[in-house]
Amino acid sequence: MNKSNAVPKASTAISEERLWKRHMDMAAIGATPGGGVNRQALTQEDFESRSLLVGWGKELGFKCSMDAIGNIFVSRSGVDINAISVMSGSHLDTQPNGGRFDGIFGVLAAFEALQAIDEVGILTKRPIEIVVWTNEEGSRFQPGCMGSLAFVQPDQLETLLAVKDDDGVEVRSEIPKLKEYLPDLDFHDLDTPLSAFIEAHIEQGPILEQKSKTIGVVSGIQGTRRFTVQVYGEDAHSGTTPRGRRKDALSSAVSMVTALEKIFHNDPEDILRFTVGRFDVSPNSPFVVPGHVRFSIDFRHPSQDVLNHLGDKVEGICQSYANNCTVDVTEISSSPSIEFDGLVPNTILEVVQNLDIPHMSIYSGAGHDAQNFSDFCPTGMIFVPCEKGISHNERENATPSDLAAGARVLADTIVELANR
Amino acid sequence: MNKSNAVPKASTAISEERLWKRHMDMAAIGATPGGGVNRQALTQEDFESRSLLVGWGKELGFKCSMDAIGNIFVSRSGVDINAISVMSGSHLDTQPNGGRFDGIFGVLAAFEALQAIDEVGILTKRPIEIVVWTNEEGSRFQPGCMGSLAFVQPDQLETLLAVKDDDGVEVRSEIPKLKEYLPDLDFHDLDTPLSAFIEAHIEQGPILEQKSKTIGVVSGIQGTRRFTVQVYGEDAHSGTTPRGRRKDALSSAVSMVTALEKIFHNDPEDILRFTVGRFDVSPNSPFVVPGHVRFSIDFRHPSQDVLNHLGDKVEGICQSYANNCTVDVTEISSSPSIEFDGLVPNTILEVVQNLDIPHMSIYSGAGHDAQNFSDFCPTGMIFVPCEKGISHNERENATPSDLAAGARVLADTIVELANR
Repeated sequence: MNKSNAVPKASTAISEERLWKRHMDMAAIGATPGGGVNRQALTQEDFESRSLLVGWGKELGFKCSMDAIGNIFVSRSGVDINAISVMSGSHLDTQPNGGRFDGIFGVLAAFEALQAIDEVGILTKRPIEIVVWTNEEGSRFQPGCMGSLAFVQPDQLETLLAVKDDDGVEVRSEIPKLKEYLPDLDFHDLDTPLSAFIEAHIEQGPILEQKSKTIGVVSGIQGTRRFTVQVYGEDAHSGTTPRGRRKDALSSAVSMVTALEKIFHNDPEDILRFTVGRFDVSPNSPFVVPGHVRFSIDFRHPSQDVLNHLGDKVEGICQSYANNCTVDVTEISSSPSIEFDGLVPNTILEVVQNLDIPHMSIYSGAGHDAQNFSDFCPTGMIFVPCEKGISHNERENATPSDLAAGARVLADTIVELANR
Repeated sequence: MNKSNAVPKASTAISEERLWKRHMDMAAIGATPGGGVNRQALTQEDFESRSLLVGWGKELGFKCSMDAIGNIFVSRSGVDINAISVMSGSHLDTQPNGGRFDGIFGVLAAFEALQAIDEVGILTKRPIEIVVWTNEEGSRFQPGCMGSLAFVQPDQLETLLAVKDDDGVEVRSEIPKLKEYLPDLDFHDLDTPLSAFIEAHIEQGPILEQKSKTIGVVSGIQGTRRFTVQVYGEDAHSGTTPRGRRKDALSSAVSMVTALEKIFHNDPEDILRFTVGRFDVSPNSPFVVPGHVRFSIDFRHPSQDVLNHLGDKVEGICQSYANNCTVDVTEISSSPSIEFDGLVPNTILEVVQNLDIPHMSIYSGAGHDAQNFSDFCPTGMIFVPCEKGISHNERENATPSDLAAGARVLADTIVELANR
C-alpha cells in the first residue's frame, strides 16, 4: 500500500474541466432539441454511450468487461490478489425527456476518480471497479434498477431477461446486440462479492441548493410502491352512444385519479410523493368513447407504516370509482425504506470534513441502484446539488464545480474503502 | 328514358349474397384479431380497399376516376348528355379499432345499386356516380369528412393537403402514392355540380333496432364542436419533487375533465354527447411528473343553442382548473345542426313505402360526409340498423338482410333521382 504523505490525495488530481467535458460528450448522444437527453435503456444511443466510456477506459489501460444483463465494468487491479473489490458507478440510460446528469454523473465521477487515483499513482489494496448499470430508469423496460438487481440477485436474471418493452421486444434480445457493439469485452460474473458499493448522484431535489451545501451524505432512500391500474370499458361511437349506454374507461379512470389524489394529497407537510405519470388510452381517437385505459401509480414515503397503510387502499379506491367499467389493479413493484450501513456514510463524512466542503446529511427521495446493495455489502451515496431540484427533465442542470467537488469526495472515499 | 313497366325495378336485382360477400372481402383488408378493421385513411390498407372497388367497377365496364384529394368515383353515363349527376357513396377508411360496416356499407350499397340498375337495363337521364370519400373518420388526419369537404369547397384543398398525421406525414405526400397504386384512373374535377347526393349508412346507434325498423329516413345531423386542450406543466422527478413545487399537467387535466363532465353530464334526457376520446401524456413515464397533456373534446347536440351556450364554456372551465399549469384551448372544428332538404328524404320515403319496408324518420347522432352537401345540392341519407347500436368498435355488426334492404331502397331512390 502506498499511503505515504509523499503521494498526494486522489482528490487533488480531479480535473473539473475533463469531468465537465465528458458530461457534454455523453450529452451529445441522444441529445434532444430542448437541451436534454433521450437515451433509453438498451437502445442504439445507450450502446453508443457505453462504447464512449469503454473507449476512455481502454485508452487508460483499464480492463473492461460485461455481465449477462449488459452491466459494464471498468476495473483497476489492487495489490492484494485475494481482496474483493470496491465498486462505484451508476447508469447512463435516461428518461425519454431526461437530463444530462441523472446517473451519468455517478458513472463519470467514478471514472474521473479512477483516473485521478491512477494519475497520482496510488496503489490500493483492493481492486476498484467502475460500473454502468443497465436500465436504471425503467422507462422502456420495467422495473428500473434492473442491472443492479440482476447483479445482487442472479436468480432474478431469467425473469428480467424476459421483460418486454411496449413493442414486445424482450431485454433478452437486446443484450446480444450490445455484445456485438462491444465485442472486445471480457466476461464479468454476476453476484461478485463486494467490500463496498458507493454511488454519486445529483440530488434530483431542491434541498442542497436551498441550504447552500455542496455535498449530501445520503442516510437512506425512501420506500416505494408502484401500481398499474387497468380500466376496461367498451369502445363506442362518440356521436351516437347515449351516456347511459357507455362504458367509458377514460371517464372512470379520471374519477379514480381524482379520488386517489384526494386521499394521497392529504399531506400538509408535503412528504408523500404520489404520481400518475403514465396514462395510456385506447383506441385514443377523438371520436371513440375509450374502451381501455392503463395508468401508473408511483407512491413513495420514508415511513414504512404510511407505505403499508395508504398503499393498501389503492385497489379499493379504484374499485369504488370503476362505475360500469371493470378495473384490475396490480402492484408491479415495491421497495422498503432503506437506511445505509454506517461504514460508507461514515467514510464519506470523514473525507468531506477533511476536504472542508459544505455538507449535510440527506434522505434520498429518488430510488437508485444503490438501494439494491444495502443488504449485499456496505453501501452509501454522495449527492451534489442540481439547479432548482429539477430532474427527469431536459432542463436538469448542475455546475462544473459542484460535480468536481462530488468527484473529489468520491475519489478519496474510494481510496479509503479500497485500503481497508 | 326507359321507365316502362316492362323493365323491373332496380331493387329487384339487388343480391343480398353478393352485397354481403363484398362486405366480407373488404373486411379482410386491415382485419384486426378482434374481428374488426383497422384501415386508416391513406394507408396501404386504405389503398387496397379502393383498389378492390375499382377492380369490381372496371370488371363491369364502369368508368373509374380520382380527384385531387384522392376521392374515387365509379360512374355510369346517363342518356341526357347535359344532365348533371346523381351521386351516392360514403367512405372505406375506418377507426383504429373500427368495424366492418361503418362507411363501407354506403359505398358497397351504392355499388350494388349501380350494378342492379345496370343488370335490369334501366337507362337513366342523369349519370350516376358512386363515390369513396377520402378520410371520413378523421383518426389519422383531422378533420374528418376531408374528401367531401374538398369536393364542395375546393378553396380548402391546399389547407387540407397540408394537414399532418402524428408522425408529421402530410396528406399531400400520400395522394401521389394512391395515384401510383391506381395508375389507370381518369381525372375527376372537384366541385362538379350535382343534382343530388345520397348516402346509405349503418345507424351507429340503437334506435332502429329498439323500434324494430329496417330503414331510417334521416331528417338531419346533430351539430358538433370539437376542441383540443393543451395543458403545459413541467416534467419533474416523481420521487423527489414535493407537491408544492410540481406543475403536474396530468393532475390539472384530470381536474378539467372532471369539471367539464360535471357541467356536460347535467343532461337528464341523455341527448347531449360529450366525449374525451384522446388523452396524450408526455413524457408518459411512470416516474416523471407529466409536463404536458393534450386531450380532445367532442361535443354534439341537435340544438344549436345548446351547442353555442355550453361550447362557449369549455375554455373558461379549463382555465379555472389549470392550477399552476397553463392551458391552451383550441376549437378545431365545428359543424352546425343540419336539416336535409325535402327532395331526397321525400323520395326515399316514397320508395320505402312502395317497397313496404318498416321505416321511421331518424336524426343522425354521428357526422357523415352527407353533411357537407346540405348547402351544395339536395341531400339525404338512408340508415339501416346495427347490432345494439355498437359502432367505432370491432364488434360492430349488421345483418345481410338489413343491408340488402338498405341497398334496395337506395337503388330505387337513385333511379327516381336520376330520372328527374
